[in-house]
Amino acid sequence: MIKYYHAEPLANSLKSMVPLFEKGLSFESIYVNLHKFEQHAAWFTAINPEGQVPVLDHDGVIITHTTVINEYLEDAFPDAPALRPNTPQGNARMRYWNKFVDEHVMNHVSMHGWHRMVGVIARGIENGDFETLMAQIPLPDQRRKWMDARSGFSAEQLALATEKIAYALDKVETQLGQTAWLAGDTYTLADINFYAHCGAMVERMFPDLAVASRHPRLIEWRDRVTARPAMQQALAMPDHTEPGLRTWSGHVR
Amino acid sequence: MIKYYHAEPLANSLKSMVPLFEKGLSFESIYVNLHKFEQHAAWFTAINPEGQVPVLDHDGVIITHTTVINEYLEDAFPDAPALRPNTPQGNARMRYWNKFVDEHVMNHVSMHGWHRMVGVIARGIENGDFETLMAQIPLPDQRRKWMDARSGFSAEQLALATEKIAYALDKVETQLGQTAWLAGDTYTLADINFYAHCGAMVERMFPDLAVASRHPRLIEWRDRVTARPAMQQALAMPDHTEPGLRTWSGHVR
Repeated sequence: MIKYYHAEPLANSLKSMVPLFEKGLSFESIYVNLHKFEQHAAWFTAINPEGQVPVLDHDGVIITHTTVINEYLEDAFPDAPALRPNTPQGNARMRYWNKFVDEHVMNHVSMHGWHRMVGVIARGIENGDFETLMAQIPLPDQRRKWMDARSGFSAEQLALATEKIAYALDKVETQLGQTAWLAGDTYTLADINFYAHCGAMVERMFPDLAVASRHPRLIEWRDRVTARPAMQQALAMPDHTEPGLRTWSGHVR
Repeated sequence: MIKYYHAEPLANSLKSMVPLFEKGLSFESIYVNLHKFEQHAAWFTAINPEGQVPVLDHDGVIITHTTVINEYLEDAFPDAPALRPNTPQGNARMRYWNKFVDEHVMNHVSMHGWHRMVGVIARGIENGDFETLMAQIPLPDQRRKWMDARSGFSAEQLALATEKIAYALDKVETQLGQTAWLAGDTYTLADINFYAHCGAMVERMFPDLAVASRHPRLIEWRDRVTARPAMQQALAMPDHTEPGLRTWSGHVR
């Protein structure tokens, strides 16, 4: 029995939902409303003390952090369609890219998303209520991110994040000139990772980067990923974000 | 045939050397002299275009990034003594901790090490020579780190890094109250990771954190890791660091 606790189908919540659909695993979808801060509520931190989505509950085993969840699904369901090459070298290529996305892409796209969306929310909270909210966030880093979003990230921070994203786009474009998918000849968790955290929304979020003209292979790859039936299923999951705040959704939705 | 390109046996270079000894794999040790910037030299960037140690060369297959190298060794040598639980849940625990060390520990200890050691080196380089050095560094992030080390990290940056390290020490201490090793009942890549990047040198590097009195389980764990024959073999590898710059070595050497 699988339960998947998640928010809107983008970024982290999308990233671990896609393998569930790709593998044809039936699961109970439990929507956690980040707009109402349910991830910090007692019922949820009893499941994940770090207060973050998504969470996988497999027969009572709780797994958190999307890269960890996704390798867990490979290990736990070896007979389902594989999203890991399962050769030593192929796995290493996949993990190299996963690490790159986790450490050098995700947070930079996320900062721009938070700046545009969460910042609006954070600044809309009354002073006393904001401190109450902060006190409920388990992870110090997450508290810092909320405080930064409320005060606004600096132009310098945002520019460095954009520079890192531009670097990542070049790196991906080069790789896609050599192999059909990021980690080689097959679609893997690395493609899902980059798509969920950057590829799906980068063109819409960063018009100045002129992604379509500078990174044509990336666009072609993005459209191939989007067209997969499992991705379509995931992207069709409900979105409770107010339309005015949907800076995260991209050309794919 | 395995070749291992590495620097002094601490941090990243130690981290992937230990599994080689634990598994009893014979390898050719190739010392890369960071004090002479050999990692940026043409002969080395021909092997690893990112210009970073360590690198594993297994029958011509080049693997970089220590967490990736270490899982590769598990995949490529399944009959050697395992450092991965090889159960879905055990692997997930190990990867959870690896991710925590990679993303929330390594860079913070590293910043203090760079501030104390690399900063001294960077400030000792003549102006023109420094720009020549910068031009040879392939990764933009690594160039930024060198420039920060030369100008000195700010008190605010260093204080935040210390705060993150203190958080990690508490987290590890709590875990070691529940399980003998970080990921459960067996010694895994997660222990090697935290040891190489923090556990080995944290007491000496951060006397103000009073590690021995506040984190007795961590000290006991550190001594257990240090006592392992494979760790002793790794720690006995040559150290070409000038004695006055050895802020990284800890109680273990």
